[in-house]
Amino acid sequence: MSSLPTLAAGVTVGDLGEAALIDRIRRRVPPAPDWVTTGIGDDAAVIEPARGTLDVVTTDTLVEGIHFERSFVSAADLGYKTLAVNLSDLAAMGATPRVVVLSLVLPAAMAAADLDTLVGGVLTLANRHQVALVGGNITRSSGPLVLGMTAIGAVRRRRVLTRAGGRPGDELWVTGTLGGAAAGLACLQRDPAGPPEADGDLAGCVERYRRPEPRVRIGTLLGRNRAARAVVDLSDGLGDGLRQLTQACHVGAVVDGAAVPIDTGARRWFETQGLDPLDAALAGGDDYELLVAVPRAHRRRFAAVRRLARGVPITRIGELTTDTALVLRTRDGDRPLPPGYQHFETAHAPPAPS
Amino acid sequence: MSSLPTLAAGVTVGDLGEAALIDRIRRRVPPAPDWVTTGIGDDAAVIEPARGTLDVVTTDTLVEGIHFERSFVSAADLGYKTLAVNLSDLAAMGATPRVVVLSLVLPAAMAAADLDTLVGGVLTLANRHQVALVGGNITRSSGPLVLGMTAIGAVRRRRVLTRAGGRPGDELWVTGTLGGAAAGLACLQRDPAGPPEADGDLAGCVERYRRPEPRVRIGTLLGRNRAARAVVDLSDGLGDGLRQLTQACHVGAVVDGAAVPIDTGARRWFETQGLDPLDAALAGGDDYELLVAVPRAHRRRFAAVRRLARGVPITRIGELTTDTALVLRTRDGDRPLPPGYQHFETAHAPPAPS
Repeated sequence: MSSLPTLAAGVTVGDLGEAALIDRIRRRVPPAPDWVTTGIGDDAAVIEPARGTLDVVTTDTLVEGIHFERSFVSAADLGYKTLAVNLSDLAAMGATPRVVVLSLVLPAAMAAADLDTLVGGVLTLANRHQVALVGGNITRSSGPLVLGMTAIGAVRRRRVLTRAGGRPGDELWVTGTLGGAAAGLACLQRDPAGPPEADGDLAGCVERYRRPEPRVRIGTLLGRNRAARAVVDLSDGLGDGLRQLTQACHVGAVVDGAAVPIDTGARRWFETQGLDPLDAALAGGDDYELLVAVPRAHRRRFAAVRRLARGVPITRIGELTTDTALVLRTRDGDRPLPPGYQHFETAHAPPAPS
Repeated sequence: MSSLPTLAAGVTVGDLGEAALIDRIRRRVPPAPDWVTTGIGDDAAVIEPARGTLDVVTTDTLVEGIHFERSFVSAADLGYKTLAVNLSDLAAMGATPRVVVLSLVLPAAMAAADLDTLVGGVLTLANRHQVALVGGNITRSSGPLVLGMTAIGAVRRRRVLTRAGGRPGDELWVTGTLGGAAAGLACLQRDPAGPPEADGDLAGCVERYRRPEPRVRIGTLLGRNRAARAVVDLSDGLGDGLRQLTQACHVGAVVDGAAVPIDTGARRWFETQGLDPLDAALAGGDDYELLVAVPRAHRRRFAAVRRLARGVPITRIGELTTDTALVLRTRDGDRPLPPGYQHFETAHAPPAPS
C-alpha cells in the first residue's frame, strides 16, 4: 500500500480518468498473497489454484435504484455489501473465498472520494476474510452506478455443498435471524436518516441491511464435516431460498412458523407497521443467512458445527417432505409458504403497509 | 439443450421474471464438460482446474450508451462482443479460455426474445472456443442495459504473457489490422443502417466493430513457444496499448507510421472524412488485436507463430527504446504518439471530422 494522492474538493471520477482511478485503487490494495502471480494492472489476473481443490465461481451485481439508493447507502457500505453478497454465495457452496474482481460502472459526476470509500468498503471485508482484490475494470455509466463483482473460492471435491441432494425427512435449519435487513431497508425508505440512535434494535436492522455478515465460517465448517446434504443462501428471502432448494432436491417442505427466528427489532417494526412479522420475514431478502438440509443421521455432526459457530444461532425450522408443496404450519393451521423476492416482479422490500 | 418455450409477441423480460429467464438460458446452454462439476443454477459454479495450470481471470462490462447503442448493435452482436472482449484479455495472457459467468442487468421493457438472441450471441462464440457458460446473475436495470462478464482461462506457469518484461531493442509486432472497428463504429454513428452492401470493405469494418475476432489462437501459440517478452491486447487502440506496455516495461518505443497495418476499408473511409488514417487508426479502439514485444534473439521462434497464425497477418511496426518517450516516425519527421481511448475522457470513436 502506498499513500493516496490528495483529492481537491469536488473532483469527480470523470475529472480523474480511468488510468488515475485504477492507480488510486492499486495504491489501496494490500500486497497480494504469493499465490497471486499477476494482480491488478495487466490484461488479466493470474492465480495459482489451491492444491487439491476445485474453483468455485460466483458473480453478483448491485444496481443503483434497484438494489440500493445512494441517498441511504454510503459508498463504503455499497462496496462492503457487494463483496458480502458474493461471499455468501461461496459460503453456501462450502468454499473458502480467495480472490475477487470488480466491475465498476460509474456515473462521471460521482465524487472521486466516493470511489475511494467504496473501494475501502470492499477492502474492509476482504481483509477480514483474507480475500485478494486482483483486478477488474472501470467504465463510465450512462445512467446508474452499477457495481459488479465476481468472487472465486476453493473447496475440496468431497466438501462441495450444492442445493441438490436433500431428501424427504431431512431437517431444515437456518443460521442467524431473518427479517432484519428487510425491516432496515423499509425503515430507510421511510426516513433515509435512519432510526433514532436510541432504538438499538432497529439500528441493528439498518446495519444488517447495509453490512450483512456472510456466513463464511459456517459454510466452510459445513463443507468440512459433511453434516449437510443441501445448502442455499437466503439472498432473496427464506420463501425464495426454500423454493430453490426444494426444486433442486425434487422435494417439498413444511416450515414451523413459530420456529422461524425473526429478528427482534424487525418483529417489533413489522408489528408497528401493521404487518405480519412472519410473512414479512419470510418474504424479505438481503439477510444472507444459510438454509441447510441435515439428515437426521447427521445430527451429531451438525451439533458440532453449531457449537463452532461463534455465537451465531442456528435454528431448526422444519423438514423436507415427499409431497412437493411448500407448507407453512402456524397456530391457525397450514397455508402455502409466501414467495420470496423476484428481481423482475416486486420491489426489493417487504410489502408496504396498507 | 432442450427446446425453448415459445414466446408470445411483445413479451418482455419483466413479464417473464428472473426464474423463467434463467430457465430459458439453461435450456440453451450445451451440456457442460465433465470438469464443470456444478454449472448454472446453484449458488455458484464449481470447476476443476486444468492439471498443472494457473487460473487466469478477467472481467469486462459493456454499457448501453457508452460502449454500444441498441439502435445499431443487435442483441446477438452484443452477446458475441462481450465474450470476444474477455477472450481477448485471456489471449493477451497466453491463456486458453475455459468458463464464463454472465451478469445481465436488463431494462424491464427489453423484449424477452432479445435476451434469447443475446445469449445466442454469447454461445456462438463460446462454442467456437469451447468455453462453458457456467453461471451468472440477472437483475433489473433502472437505466441502460449493462452486460458484464468474467472469463476464466488456464495457462501453464512458464507460459504466462504479461505486459511487463519487454526490454529496449525488442521488436514490436501487431496482429491483424487496425482502425477497422473505429471506422465501422463511426460509419454506424453516421447511419445506423450501415454502409451499402456493395461497399464490402466498409461492411467489413462494421462487422469488425460488431463481432471482433479475439486472437485466442495466436495468444496461446505465443505462450507455448515463448517467443514474446510482453503482450497487451488493443481494446482501446494502439496508442493506449503501447502506453500500457511501455509503462509496465519501464521503456519507450518508436513506431514506424508507414508500417502500421491500417485496414483498407478504414483507410479509405477516414480519408473521405478528411481524417488522417494513421492518427485515426492509432486512436481507434475495439480492434482487439495483440501488441507483442519480441526480443531479436527470438525471431525464429516468432516466425513459427506467424506461420501458424492461419492467415492473420502479423506486422512489425517498431521497437522498444531506452528513452521512455513514445515516438511516431513518419515521412514528415518524428512526433509524439497520439493517445488511445480513455473511458472517462473522450467518446468511443475516432475524432469527428471538422
